[in-house]
Amino acid sequence: MSTLLLLPGDGIGPEVIEQVRRVASRLANDLTLEERAFGGTSFDQFGTPLTEEAEAVALASDAVLMGAVGGPKWAGAPRAQRPEAGLLRLRQAMNVYANLRPAICFDALAGASALKPEFVSGLDIMIVRELTGGVYFGQPRGIETLADGQKRGVDTQVYTTSEIERVSRVAFELARGRRNKVTSCEKSNVMETGLLWREVVTALHARDYADVQLEHMLADNAAMQLVKNPLQFDVIVTDNLFGDILSDEAAMLTGGIGLLPSAALGDPGKPGLYEPIHGSAPDIAGQGLANPLAAILSFEMALRWSLGRTDLADKLNAAVKAALEEGARTRDIGGSLTTAQMGDAVLKGL
Amino acid sequence: MSTLLLLPGDGIGPEVIEQVRRVASRLANDLTLEERAFGGTSFDQFGTPLTEEAEAVALASDAVLMGAVGGPKWAGAPRAQRPEAGLLRLRQAMNVYANLRPAICFDALAGASALKPEFVSGLDIMIVRELTGGVYFGQPRGIETLADGQKRGVDTQVYTTSEIERVSRVAFELARGRRNKVTSCEKSNVMETGLLWREVVTALHARDYADVQLEHMLADNAAMQLVKNPLQFDVIVTDNLFGDILSDEAAMLTGGIGLLPSAALGDPGKPGLYEPIHGSAPDIAGQGLANPLAAILSFEMALRWSLGRTDLADKLNAAVKAALEEGARTRDIGGSLTTAQMGDAVLKGL
Ligand SMILES: CC(C)[C@H](C(=O)O)[C@@H](O)C(=O)O
Ligand SMILES: CC(C)[C@H](C(=O)O)[C@@H](O)C(=O)O
Repeated sequence: MSTLLLLPGDGIGPEVIEQVRRVASRLANDLTLEERAFGGTSFDQFGTPLTEEAEAVALASDAVLMGAVGGPKWAGAPRAQRPEAGLLRLRQAMNVYANLRPAICFDALAGASALKPEFVSGLDIMIVRELTGGVYFGQPRGIETLADGQKRGVDTQVYTTSEIERVSRVAFELARGRRNKVTSCEKSNVMETGLLWREVVTALHARDYADVQLEHMLADNAAMQLVKNPLQFDVIVTDNLFGDILSDEAAMLTGGIGLLPSAALGDPGKPGLYEPIHGSAPDIAGQGLANPLAAILSFEMALRWSLGRTDLADKLNAAVKAALEEGARTRDIGGSLTTAQMGDAVLKGL
Repeated sequence: MSTLLLLPGDGIGPEVIEQVRRVASRLANDLTLEERAFGGTSFDQFGTPLTEEAEAVALASDAVLMGAVGGPKWAGAPRAQRPEAGLLRLRQAMNVYANLRPAICFDALAGASALKPEFVSGLDIMIVRELTGGVYFGQPRGIETLADGQKRGVDTQVYTTSEIERVSRVAFELARGRRNKVTSCEKSNVMETGLLWREVVTALHARDYADVQLEHMLADNAAMQLVKNPLQFDVIVTDNLFGDILSDEAAMLTGGIGLLPSAALGDPGKPGLYEPIHGSAPDIAGQGLANPLAAILSFEMALRWSLGRTDLADKLNAAVKAALEEGARTRDIGGSLTTAQMGDAVLKGL
């Protein structure tokens, strides 16, 4: 019997996680669901975006599924108590270094993209973003005041061989089960970590993955190529910061960011952290307008990657596709279903 | 009498700069044209991508116009001798801290974008990228080998109040002559330099530019919004690395990267550095296939911003637009004109 920890979080988080609850009870009634406060909601209750108790429960679970964190309400909180800080702490505590962010264009939604359908129909990119290193965590960092009253801000990007290797390994393994191509993105023409990144990926490829097609692409060029010809990509592997930006760009190409899930994985056997790509969307929170599919598909990823239930994952995926094909649409994808009605549409297919 | 230094550089650089030469002789025959080797071409001749002599000539000119640098031929050169290193050194020596990168969708070309015409027609974004600071130049940086044989790469991003202020001032000033809106992009939710960036831009706005509409947007969200609704932007101001990525993404939205110029400006009265957005495109170099319009429009920016000849800049801009409206097209924008024939088409309008 497995345990899934739900962290609904802020904004639309609770509404979309509520639909996951319904789906989970129907689909996997032997799954134990736990729930804890997280993000701003946790800060309001406990003065911290992630309590030690919640962190411990996360580490002891088989998978963690979060909704979303953040919102204007907490923008003034001290930096270390911001909702985002809780998320960064959780990522690091769980050591989930490989963030899988699929950018998939669902057939039923190809028309919703800003791009012409011929550029995105059939799109299926898997972005593997390094998640526990780089400029997000490097030391030294801070803001100091200089003698002349000026301020000076510093961030440090650090990567080691093993950090680059383990995330690249995930990318190569994934590619083997897909179209067998990995595009590694960095700025090796200007950054030292980019140079090391390229060197480590190249060596790992030669050593263990020579059967996979490997291509190196500068991050700025990748940002262009994603617009120019997104269908050229299969798996993209990149660092924490470039991954943050490129995965958001890629997600938006699909026209359906309300549908995109993500998984953050650590070493085999350790719990994964799952979350929709979309944010907390405070402007529509509490109104039943949010699309729960990204959260539901994040649960699907949890079934697949952490809970050992590929069968249920496939079933859930089919139910989501069927709902879309039958025309179920929340507002973000041009329809008028409420969050709960979209949940109903998926339940119908289970 | 003003002096313009031409740095044709590598790949398609020389071909496109050749067309600038023709245009300049017709349009501004009192302009003195100098020329020096640059990038890989300079490395081949002198063992360095930028000689001290060329650097001195650049600093003594009224404007510098480069073609492009880089190519596979020099990928194995020692890092400090790579073509890109020459460009970074030139930017810093000239102290051109504000990089103006317009993303304009020419009416005649709206159909060429991967985006649906209604998302890009009329697009006119000005990206102001900080160009002489941040992670491109911060110390410490390097790759060290650890005791266990692992390597560790480090880059440092540094920004001071005055660095942020001077580039933001350029953005606010530009906005006043446009649609009066500035979007400032950073990752203040995870980076210290992002936090300082937001603070400095906010303070400068309140102090000197309260009449301009200011909006803050996280860089990952900006990467999404550029795809979702690019027409929402007027001026974007951001740091060196985010600017590199976001400006390339924005350029590609227009469908006409072969047409986009850029300007890098320092303090008033100092020479500016002008260059097409496109790279050296080694795959088509020497074949007369390259589009010279980006280089010609970079010359237009030089006339406008460094050479004090707005009249000639307007005339040149009109000639380029006329050529496009009459259907002049190189291969990249769906036609079959050679580089020189596109030059002819512009000359016709002068
Ligand atoms: C909320 C924020 C800290 C986070 C990040 O930058 O990683 C978010 O943008 C994401 O991509 O999950
Ligand atoms: C060539 C390279 C160093 C450069 C950069 O990263 O600044 C290029 O991508 C650019 O945008 O001008």
